[in-house]
This record gives sequence, structure tokens and C-alpha cells, in this order.
Amino acid sequence: MTAWVQVELKKTVLDPQGKAIQAALAKLGYQGVAELRQAKMFEIQLQPGLDRAEAQRQVERAAREVLTNPVIEEYSIRWEE
Amino acid sequence: MTAWVQVELKKTVLDPQGKAIQAALAKLGYQGVAELRQAKMFEIQLQPGLDRAEAQRQVERAAREVLTNPVIEEYSIRWEE
Repeated sequence: MTAWVQVELKKTVLDPQGKAIQAALAKLGYQGVAELRQAKMFEIQLQPGLDRAEAQRQVERAAREVLTNPVIEEYSIRWEE
Repeated sequence: MTAWVQVELKKTVLDPQGKAIQAALAKLGYQGVAELRQAKMFEIQLQPGLDRAEAQRQVERAAREVLTNPVIEEYSIRWEE
């Protein structure tokens, strides 16, 4: 079982790294790019045989309490068997 | 139109940042986590009205030539209308 936790800056928070890449792409001639924002992704492999509900509980809690800074970031979780 | 470009280290490349987070989670009691790897995600908004084929061409090229270091990383692209 694998969980993909995506952590991104809240839409109201400025993303200077994304803006820098966006400016670089514009300078290189990529005219089609209107906006670029960078996010973090964590691929979490769970222990084999772990109970599904327990896995969800641990990943949800790790995302909320360890991987995300709730002041400026938000997270979403996607599961893969 | 939005493209999500995920850039991750090749499976054969060590991910020290992921390992550090994995060790921190283990220390905090998250026993369910078997492995954790960190990846980058770029959310790219395309100019409105841009031709679909041209958008794909630009994002594919940006992913290959700007966002990814082909020596140690690989990318995948997901599209959203």
C-alpha cells in the first residue's frame, strides 16, 4: 500500500521559488506558461500487512502534524494499492 | 488547462531527505511507514486559449530540459482540464 501526500503552499501564500522558475521559463521562450507553483510530494510505502484503517490514520496524522506547516501549507492524500 | 509535473529521484538514487524524514517518523512512533521518498511537484497553468498540442509540447520540453536533471531524476506529467 502506498500513500502519496502532496503538500502545497496555500493559494494566498506567495511562492517565490515557483515565481523564479516561471520567470526562467518565460526568459527561455516558454510563452504558454501563465503560472507555475511548486509543491512537495511524499511517497509513503506502508508496512506490508498493515491494517488499512490504521495506515490511513498514521498517514493522515503524519501529513497533518509532521509533513505540513499548517500556517502556510495544506495537504492532500492519494492512495494506491 | 493545468499540467502537474512530478519530478522524482530515480529509484536507484539515494534520497537522503526522504530517509531523514522516514527516520524522524520512526522516532515519533509511526511504525506503519516502511519507506518514504520525497519528490517535487510543479503545477503549471497554461495560457487560456492555448492550443492543446502546443501546450503539451511546451510542458513536455520544460519538464525534460528545465525541471528535471536527467542524470538522477525522472518526470511524469498529469493533465487537468
